[in-house]
Amino acid sequence: MANKKITSRDVDFAKWYTDVVAEAHLASYSNVKGCIILEPYGYMIWEKIQSVMNDLLKKSGHQNVAMPMLIPENLMKKEGELINGFAPEVAWVTEGGQEKLDERMCIRPTSETLFSDYYATLVKSYRDLPVKYNQWCTVMRWEKETRPFLRGREFWWQEGHTIHATKEEAENEARFIMDNVYKKIFYDYFAIPAITGLKTEKEKFAGADYTLTIEALMYNGVSLQSGTSHYFGQRFSKAYDIKFLNKNNEWEYAYQTSWGASSRMIGALIMVHSDDDGLVLPPKIAPLQVVIIPIGNSDDVLNLASSYKDKLESAGISVSIDNSDKTPGFKFADSEVKGIPVRIEIGPRDLENNQVTLVRRDTKEKITINKDNDIVLEVNDLMDKIQSNLLDRATKRRDEMTYLAKDLDEVKKIMDTRPGFIKADWCGSMECEMKMKEIKGLKSRCILENEKPLTGKCVVCGNKADKLVVWGIQY
Amino acid sequence: MANKKITSRDVDFAKWYTDVVAEAHLASYSNVKGCIILEPYGYMIWEKIQSVMNDLLKKSGHQNVAMPMLIPENLMKKEGELINGFAPEVAWVTEGGQEKLDERMCIRPTSETLFSDYYATLVKSYRDLPVKYNQWCTVMRWEKETRPFLRGREFWWQEGHTIHATKEEAENEARFIMDNVYKKIFYDYFAIPAITGLKTEKEKFAGADYTLTIEALMYNGVSLQSGTSHYFGQRFSKAYDIKFLNKNNEWEYAYQTSWGASSRMIGALIMVHSDDDGLVLPPKIAPLQVVIIPIGNSDDVLNLASSYKDKLESAGISVSIDNSDKTPGFKFADSEVKGIPVRIEIGPRDLENNQVTLVRRDTKEKITINKDNDIVLEVNDLMDKIQSNLLDRATKRRDEMTYLAKDLDEVKKIMDTRPGFIKADWCGSMECEMKMKEIKGLKSRCILENEKPLTGKCVVCGNKADKLVVWGIQY
Repeated sequence: MANKKITSRDVDFAKWYTDVVAEAHLASYSNVKGCIILEPYGYMIWEKIQSVMNDLLKKSGHQNVAMPMLIPENLMKKEGELINGFAPEVAWVTEGGQEKLDERMCIRPTSETLFSDYYATLVKSYRDLPVKYNQWCTVMRWEKETRPFLRGREFWWQEGHTIHATKEEAENEARFIMDNVYKKIFYDYFAIPAITGLKTEKEKFAGADYTLTIEALMYNGVSLQSGTSHYFGQRFSKAYDIKFLNKNNEWEYAYQTSWGASSRMIGALIMVHSDDDGLVLPPKIAPLQVVIIPIGNSDDVLNLASSYKDKLESAGISVSIDNSDKTPGFKFADSEVKGIPVRIEIGPRDLENNQVTLVRRDTKEKITINKDNDIVLEVNDLMDKIQSNLLDRATKRRDEMTYLAKDLDEVKKIMDTRPGFIKADWCGSMECEMKMKEIKGLKSRCILENEKPLTGKCVVCGNKADKLVVWGIQY
Repeated sequence: MANKKITSRDVDFAKWYTDVVAEAHLASYSNVKGCIILEPYGYMIWEKIQSVMNDLLKKSGHQNVAMPMLIPENLMKKEGELINGFAPEVAWVTEGGQEKLDERMCIRPTSETLFSDYYATLVKSYRDLPVKYNQWCTVMRWEKETRPFLRGREFWWQEGHTIHATKEEAENEARFIMDNVYKKIFYDYFAIPAITGLKTEKEKFAGADYTLTIEALMYNGVSLQSGTSHYFGQRFSKAYDIKFLNKNNEWEYAYQTSWGASSRMIGALIMVHSDDDGLVLPPKIAPLQVVIIPIGNSDDVLNLASSYKDKLESAGISVSIDNSDKTPGFKFADSEVKGIPVRIEIGPRDLENNQVTLVRRDTKEKITINKDNDIVLEVNDLMDKIQSNLLDRATKRRDEMTYLAKDLDEVKKIMDTRPGFIKADWCGSMECEMKMKEIKGLKSRCILENEKPLTGKCVVCGNKADKLVVWGIQY
């Protein structure tokens, strides 16, 4: 009895995705090409993600700031690789206040340049370090093909920028963000078993010494790069003159990182967990965790609904009562399309037997409980089960879709059946990386840092290989 | 013993203001002309304002959304007056992705056009109304002269945009926002006795039927327009085709409002309450309400500090312990420059007498209490006193600087001594309004709606006047 307005994900995954975005009222197309509108429910999810991430960042000593949205061309160009990387996709402001500008400015595609320019004025001594700032904003990249949440000209994100007195401390920061912020959020909140590792030289961020990445596998076997953390060494600090007096009273350039994750994460939540009835949200990230649906409007039913709501709210659970004038069937479907983890149905017939019904969104299972049970305990227990079931289910699927390949024939066979993560050894040459790309656009997702090569021979050229790489096609 | 890095406000108010902004680390100048950087402490205050306002807005049925930052020129021009009002001060994007755009786009100076375009697709029936959306974002206006928080090319704000099925409901919304959101926040949280009223035709928002405004008086007698709420009637809904089937099954254009308040509010907090030692923040808006300063590092002192911190935090009070290696004197000055409402000093000598010292930021008064007193009660009590003292003090000052004038000579005399709010009758003609402007730039702040004219004769021309207007010079 799937939602009739939603195409089946096994029939047409791309259509299913845009149907879910539209029917759950997450986002809407705008008349500004390539830019979407975040609708209230989409924005609520984004606010919840912000709140979870802010918490982790503030506890680890990061502070929020806000930088200008425009970057003068000369400031943008000070570090050569960054501008080379972004020049093809920035938007330029050339007129302001009815006059042509002396120097054009781009709308930030990312803000390393602005932070670096600011940090150069902020820091004088090792005592001023580290500086660990983050900002929540939108950035603009002039993409040709766009898809809600996955790729857009304007998108929502956070970008952290830190400077440190030592290389070691900066490298630890880049890893801390990847392991203790991004990976933690993906596992513990999103219930998504994403993998992490190093980007290859070809795929790393323009200007970075190296890039750590978190990659998630979608239901259809396509990969989604979901967050990156970069170690810059002293490249930007030399270009922007960020230096400090170290403990030996000598001038030294600061060691720098940056890291970002975006509204793409909402795309991941949709494409990993959701189904033909709409969105499925893990309880820990759902802005609305419980909906209570009274059937009929007898006093008994309404009183119990409102007593449940009070109890759940006092326990910090986000809950609403749907007492609109729609039919119960409509309300059930609506709670499903929005992915609300737990639905409580209170009907007169159930009440006669002292019962109410809880419905899990992830499995649709109905659970009848005594109406006098501790509703907070029941709901918390059920939410724990949903949260861990979603992670288990996604892990099982990811593992089923993770393949090992020893040569190009095996790679091709895998890609002819169903895409996924392909683990294969790599010699490190860009030539071999490009050869892989000829197979349906396969790209290196990341180099696994804690796993040994399968055979020690490159999957493409057969030469010695000391890196185990996960390959996949990407959004 | 004023802070030596801060110019006295009675000597040079403008310099005092920028000193406080710099020394409290609220904002920093950037190398992007006319744009500032919100530093961590400034951003914390902004986050606190957002949290307070979000609470009031969400409770009254408003929802947050996010719209694109760019507006194509044709979309911007659909309603004629708005573009006329904003054309001189917008920034235009003319190139994207290395190509010249077919149609230039401006960075939003405000988003009536985008919301209206979206609402036209969203609404079909009176059952879909009202729609009450708000967004938090930055906007850009190409100002020539800028000052941190008061006037800048880019600033932070919220903009609410609502549509309704009836004129009455829309007008109520515009007033609700002014009276129950903006005015409430100014009085109850900011402790600022701002006045509200109607803008004149000359001063109203481009495209509005009328504009309600909240105006605050700064320490130096200059007015700050601090938030506006506009009723549009059907002007935008006709230009953008926002129509719905009403209860009689007839097509009708929606009735619309918009309202906004910005990071200017931080400027108001500085210029109403702060002093020569730095920022003074009302406890209800201070991101950090209490700082505990241990003197020396005996176990007794440190244990008590950390026990206080736990107790205060459990009671929902925002508190930190300053255990840096700076001197107590430095820490006292730092807590003052940041405007932290309550300082708790714990020293070994006090402890010998079972005492600790609380210091109020607003009056500098020191209060010695028994260390075993209920610290939560003591702090809450003191914060209540500070909050109401700040409002009383600001109200007294506002009243002292509010003058009545019956003719232009009186107006000139007042302006020759000290500016402030001048109440004077006005006939309603723009000619008389322009005459007032010749006196040191006096502008109508607002028409008072609940007060009768003083004499019934216009302060300028002497003709019949039925409006009592507050005049002032403005930031």
